[in-house]
Amino acid sequence: MYYSKMLLPTLKETPAEAETVSHQLLLRAGMIRKLTSGIYDYLPLGLMVLRKVEAIVREEMNCAGAQELLLPAVQPAELWQESGRWQIYGKELLRFQDRHDRDYCFGPTHEEVITDLVRREVHSYRQLPLNLYQIQTKFRDEIRPRFGLIRGREFIMKDGYSFDIDEAGADQTYRAMYDAYTRIFSRCGLRFKTVEADSGPIGGSFSHEFMVLAETGEDVVVSCTACAYAANLEKAEILPTESSLPVEPLLPLEKVHTPGVRSVSEVADFLQTTPDRVLKTMIYQTDEGAVAVLLRGDHEVNEVKLKNFLQVSELFLAPEEVIRQETNAAVGFAGPVGLNLPIYADYGLGSAVNLVAGANENDYHIINVNFDRDLVVKGFADLRQASNSDPCPRCGAALEFLRGIEVGHVFKLGYKYSKALKATFLDDQGREQYMFMGCYGIGVSRIVAAAIEQNHDLDGIIFPMPLAPFQVLLVPIAANDVDTMAVASRLYQEIRAAGIEVLFDDRNERPGIKFKDGDLLGIPVRVVLGPKTLAQGAAEVRQRRSRAVQLIPLASLVAYLQDHIQAEMIRPT
Amino acid sequence: MYYSKMLLPTLKETPAEAETVSHQLLLRAGMIRKLTSGIYDYLPLGLMVLRKVEAIVREEMNCAGAQELLLPAVQPAELWQESGRWQIYGKELLRFQDRHDRDYCFGPTHEEVITDLVRREVHSYRQLPLNLYQIQTKFRDEIRPRFGLIRGREFIMKDGYSFDIDEAGADQTYRAMYDAYTRIFSRCGLRFKTVEADSGPIGGSFSHEFMVLAETGEDVVVSCTACAYAANLEKAEILPTESSLPVEPLLPLEKVHTPGVRSVSEVADFLQTTPDRVLKTMIYQTDEGAVAVLLRGDHEVNEVKLKNFLQVSELFLAPEEVIRQETNAAVGFAGPVGLNLPIYADYGLGSAVNLVAGANENDYHIINVNFDRDLVVKGFADLRQASNSDPCPRCGAALEFLRGIEVGHVFKLGYKYSKALKATFLDDQGREQYMFMGCYGIGVSRIVAAAIEQNHDLDGIIFPMPLAPFQVLLVPIAANDVDTMAVASRLYQEIRAAGIEVLFDDRNERPGIKFKDGDLLGIPVRVVLGPKTLAQGAAEVRQRRSRAVQLIPLASLVAYLQDHIQAEMIRPT
Repeated sequence: MYYSKMLLPTLKETPAEAETVSHQLLLRAGMIRKLTSGIYDYLPLGLMVLRKVEAIVREEMNCAGAQELLLPAVQPAELWQESGRWQIYGKELLRFQDRHDRDYCFGPTHEEVITDLVRREVHSYRQLPLNLYQIQTKFRDEIRPRFGLIRGREFIMKDGYSFDIDEAGADQTYRAMYDAYTRIFSRCGLRFKTVEADSGPIGGSFSHEFMVLAETGEDVVVSCTACAYAANLEKAEILPTESSLPVEPLLPLEKVHTPGVRSVSEVADFLQTTPDRVLKTMIYQTDEGAVAVLLRGDHEVNEVKLKNFLQVSELFLAPEEVIRQETNAAVGFAGPVGLNLPIYADYGLGSAVNLVAGANENDYHIINVNFDRDLVVKGFADLRQASNSDPCPRCGAALEFLRGIEVGHVFKLGYKYSKALKATFLDDQGREQYMFMGCYGIGVSRIVAAAIEQNHDLDGIIFPMPLAPFQVLLVPIAANDVDTMAVASRLYQEIRAAGIEVLFDDRNERPGIKFKDGDLLGIPVRVVLGPKTLAQGAAEVRQRRSRAVQLIPLASLVAYLQDHIQAEMIRPT
Repeated sequence: MYYSKMLLPTLKETPAEAETVSHQLLLRAGMIRKLTSGIYDYLPLGLMVLRKVEAIVREEMNCAGAQELLLPAVQPAELWQESGRWQIYGKELLRFQDRHDRDYCFGPTHEEVITDLVRREVHSYRQLPLNLYQIQTKFRDEIRPRFGLIRGREFIMKDGYSFDIDEAGADQTYRAMYDAYTRIFSRCGLRFKTVEADSGPIGGSFSHEFMVLAETGEDVVVSCTACAYAANLEKAEILPTESSLPVEPLLPLEKVHTPGVRSVSEVADFLQTTPDRVLKTMIYQTDEGAVAVLLRGDHEVNEVKLKNFLQVSELFLAPEEVIRQETNAAVGFAGPVGLNLPIYADYGLGSAVNLVAGANENDYHIINVNFDRDLVVKGFADLRQASNSDPCPRCGAALEFLRGIEVGHVFKLGYKYSKALKATFLDDQGREQYMFMGCYGIGVSRIVAAAIEQNHDLDGIIFPMPLAPFQVLLVPIAANDVDTMAVASRLYQEIRAAGIEVLFDDRNERPGIKFKDGDLLGIPVRVVLGPKTLAQGAAEVRQRRSRAVQLIPLASLVAYLQDHIQAEMIRPT
């Protein structure tokens, strides 16, 4: 490709709209442009990288026995009503009506559509297992689209769905997909971690996420420093532990005046105690009504765990007016004693006694609050977030916390959709059985961003070879020198003819501008030609990542490039 | 690919929902399934063919200097308001609102989005010309989706847009695209005709359509039997001709009783004259009010010409109640004399005199109606459809009429969008100029259907080699014979290793079923292995199209297949 002909609008300045490195560099390198909130144009360079990711995904999926198909973006409401998700999916589901006022949505995921297809076409165990996938544009109407391609509204996803005769078969398929995903992310040149994950609104019994480790990640990965345990913070288990507080006799309840003292640390300071002796009372609203959750003052609620425990589909912190109404007091003075709400408590409270809590009265707290005697709890559970001080739930060693970007997610779905949509088959005994399903997603466009989050420096992107839009950047530095340009043009044709993807910077620009753009674009290998190197019958070859420079004789340049590219293409066994 | 593993649900019976051959065969061969009206799942076999078309399109577009990008499916209303199409596009534009109640549409075409991108990124003549394209899922909310992939609502299109500094440049780009399209459709193995076309709601000054000739085509192609002239019937010009009627003195108007006589032929019979002496009066409604159109009784209105002539965006035949109100008579008795509507007349009426017309009174007509004396016409124009009796507008020879399926359309757009969206650049004199645009569409999913319309027989599809999902079907006919299966498996691996796309029918089915399915799927070459051929060290090779059968020694089979496939890949120069 000739640089001068390409729509490749690089930017010198960092656009103000972009918060994360990948978003900034995707814009600066002319790979994407924003059309509107969370919706992007992929320019030629951006599309090339996207296609590289797609090709790797496709190869490994096919290799793992999955078959590609393509389902519609526009889906009829009836199928979503059948699965029950039309009601519960919320505003992220983009809904609309056609000219005949029939209801549809823009598919954010395709469990319903694929299950509908399979229930119509598959009737016998002989046709199973089936593993089907597509690479397609999806839409989720995110409330806060952000970070460019990391959390857009319109995005490209590989979504796959498997149908097995039973759970044992599904486990094999799950494993095959897990392995395929490991190969895919390795081949993309990503540093990633596989973690146990919450299954969220997709449902299902079991799931793993593939996290690209990057400081800008929205997710927190909790992993053990000793064993193989790793989980999304949302999911990270905490074992019920004995309270570390001293065993004391129960003291009588007492109301104390705490004017303007609201936060846990303020209360602990004011009452000369420690935060772990303060009972934190959080009031949540759910689609099944309000609830109160109690935790140790130094712990934080894990809303995902709480939501799963309560089995509700909506859950959010109660707004101020609800808190006032339920507690008759301002925010900061809620407590469980006398509170007329279902109360749940976190395991972390253990056997703690004589705790401090809000009095449900402005400017007052109660001391010496004790379970059973002073309040009734509907249940104890693991409701909080793991923290630095928690041990690994598997082996007890210390945990570490890293940030990650979710690029893949595999789910063991079970019968959720096959039962809802009645996807059955006849087994080898002629009995009707539900299919056992799995589903497997990869954020194709998100991988492009994640790769940049992991691979960049102050000058720009450093593409791993397998994802690079071009493998080689060819830069003649004396655009006015006829000899240099003649050699460069010939070399360009030779490099192309060898099957190497090369961008020829034929622009009549100063070397500094060409080098700056080249570093920004992140093409792994740069070949510079100028009168000086030509006088030596050589070209200067520079590695974008290491910045190492070598002079390579023109006669062996193409062979050198071929070998080098070959060596940098990651091929896991 | 192993047949037994593939989601390939063939049907013995022709589905009742399918009217055309391609729709029937796409369903029967397990290539597509209907999700809902005009929206289809592409099953693995269907997607393979789609990808073959895409690859040919991509190769030829890139070769012609176009660059691929990818624009969003979801487009903000603001851009369509800027171009003015938000108001005029009608119900085919699928509109919706996001969670913040902002207006969007599912892009049926991308003139606005691409012009918006280019106006933001291109500012100098040095950056032009630019020719950008994408292959993408579109949605048009057709009032009557039909014929499967031929007129669906969700479909896959290649849409390209060019930006030139002036019309001369745009003409070169147009020509390059015209040539690329010719290569694309040739390489797909389609018999097609390029015709002059109406520009429709896209706008622009000049356009050509690429029509695949097939009896089931929705379009009519008019072409000259002598010269190169060819046009869509919608567009086919008719020159103003002298009336062939005898010159007569004008006779006095006279009202005659014609009880129950309504149609042109009834009137002609009843009054013992010929249809060409009957004045047909058609009343149309438009967004600018009702109009009357006069033609010779034996001619038909061309609504596209009428719409363009009147420069209205909506036009349809007036319903009965409007006709009653405007004429004070039942349908069949409308006439221009005393009619209080703008009246336009077709050139075909020429200098005709003493015509018969409706009297605007039930059961009455008027004879000896004459222009100027009895009625005032606002304008004469070419408003009718060409017919068998019309001569070629270029050379005067006879015309022929064929049916076609539009698979490509190239438009010289001009300044319509660049002016509306202010897409300007500075020319080499530093003056601000509007970009001159073109746009170029290919119905990628429609090509799959069109290819089947042209290439099938009673047994099923006959894929042209370049579009075939598999090039070779390998059929062992004694699935229980260990030797046959061993040789077949080995051969399967050898054929695959040679880079040939092969479907291995490893099913434990009778030969008759395998052959029937194979003919239905349309794979160009079938290789049959059985104990009898193996005894001769050979396989039976059959061409799907010619049904010619040959025995080929196993030792030279792979080489034979390679040569044969190579010969059938169409490579226009």
